[in-house]
Amino acid sequence: MLKLYYAPDTCALATHIALEQVGAEYETVRVNFAEKEENSPEYLRMNPKGRVPTLVTSRGILTETPAILQFVCQTYPDAGLAPLDDIFELARMNAFNSYLCSTVHVAHAHRLRGNRWADDPLAIAAMQKKVPQSVGDSFALIEREFHGPWVLGERYSTCDIYLFTLAQWLESDGVNPEQFPRIADHRTRMRQDPLVAKIVAAETSGG
Amino acid sequence: MLKLYYAPDTCALATHIALEQVGAEYETVRVNFAEKEENSPEYLRMNPKGRVPTLVTSRGILTETPAILQFVCQTYPDAGLAPLDDIFELARMNAFNSYLCSTVHVAHAHRLRGNRWADDPLAIAAMQKKVPQSVGDSFALIEREFHGPWVLGERYSTCDIYLFTLAQWLESDGVNPEQFPRIADHRTRMRQDPLVAKIVAAETSGG
Repeated sequence: MLKLYYAPDTCALATHIALEQVGAEYETVRVNFAEKEENSPEYLRMNPKGRVPTLVTSRGILTETPAILQFVCQTYPDAGLAPLDDIFELARMNAFNSYLCSTVHVAHAHRLRGNRWADDPLAIAAMQKKVPQSVGDSFALIEREFHGPWVLGERYSTCDIYLFTLAQWLESDGVNPEQFPRIADHRTRMRQDPLVAKIVAAETSGG
Repeated sequence: MLKLYYAPDTCALATHIALEQVGAEYETVRVNFAEKEENSPEYLRMNPKGRVPTLVTSRGILTETPAILQFVCQTYPDAGLAPLDDIFELARMNAFNSYLCSTVHVAHAHRLRGNRWADDPLAIAAMQKKVPQSVGDSFALIEREFHGPWVLGERYSTCDIYLFTLAQWLESDGVNPEQFPRIADHRTRMRQDPLVAKIVAAETSGG
């Protein structure tokens, strides 16, 4: 059975929702970030990156949300969460997810994880100051390219799950979602999905 | 025919090498970063991100190296550059490439692209100062996990092309490659590949 290590308010939510939506048999383990459990020797032995998500499979662990999302889709192809039968559309899905991972999430990370890239407290404060702009700019690009109803157009995919996950952070990153009416509407529709709501509630309640 | 927009000394080298190694019919267009051609209206109309690589296909453009690499492999499956027949190994390939994109490349980008994440010149200088450490730490993790001869083990894949591409920057990022004997040896072996050498030479000479 697949096992997901996650923490609330992290990008692991995307994998969590995907596992639920494909109907996977899986269990979850909550990693206590407040106690820095992700840096414990036990956790680092499993995942040397000290991050979430970690997906434990029968063949070993997987990390990195874009890679895990495609893996979940290929393991449960009938769920239709990825255009597996269309090389170009699959590449579009992966390109979008890669942008979320390497640009949007990275912009966000400069708010609380600035010490990854500088030691000077003034530099870390300067990074925090720019987060509303850098996160806002990356969502503005998504908004302009978004023709709906889903990220890839008519077809729902992992892009929607992952976009929803990072759009959870807009307000705390100092970005007003009303600037991005399509993304805001998308977020509202995603929240109304019963399985999405179930997973968000489970993570919030510590389940 | 596929068309690759690239600039020398960028991660577009990975796509360039992959296209050559799979035997694709493709042409290249060099983007003049010195003249900020990537921010020209013409370029932005094609690729609103204003970055390279851009791969133009018969169905539209693709961006983001991890996504493009899998697309090239799926388009030319007989070349064997990806474990397309093994869902888990393919996820390992994509996880490695995602790490290069979102952690290693991002750490590197704080040397010359700090203005993406802060405006204060002192903050930008503080970011530059930490690049040798942040880039070095991410390569140290790769070195510890590298069992060879290739990134995925016995099987050569796009991971090797992409790792080679980013390992080109070690010295200019202030990281001594001798700290990482397996990565340094890998880089040497990659440079000896005639097709890799051909593409590196073509980019260097402006071809």
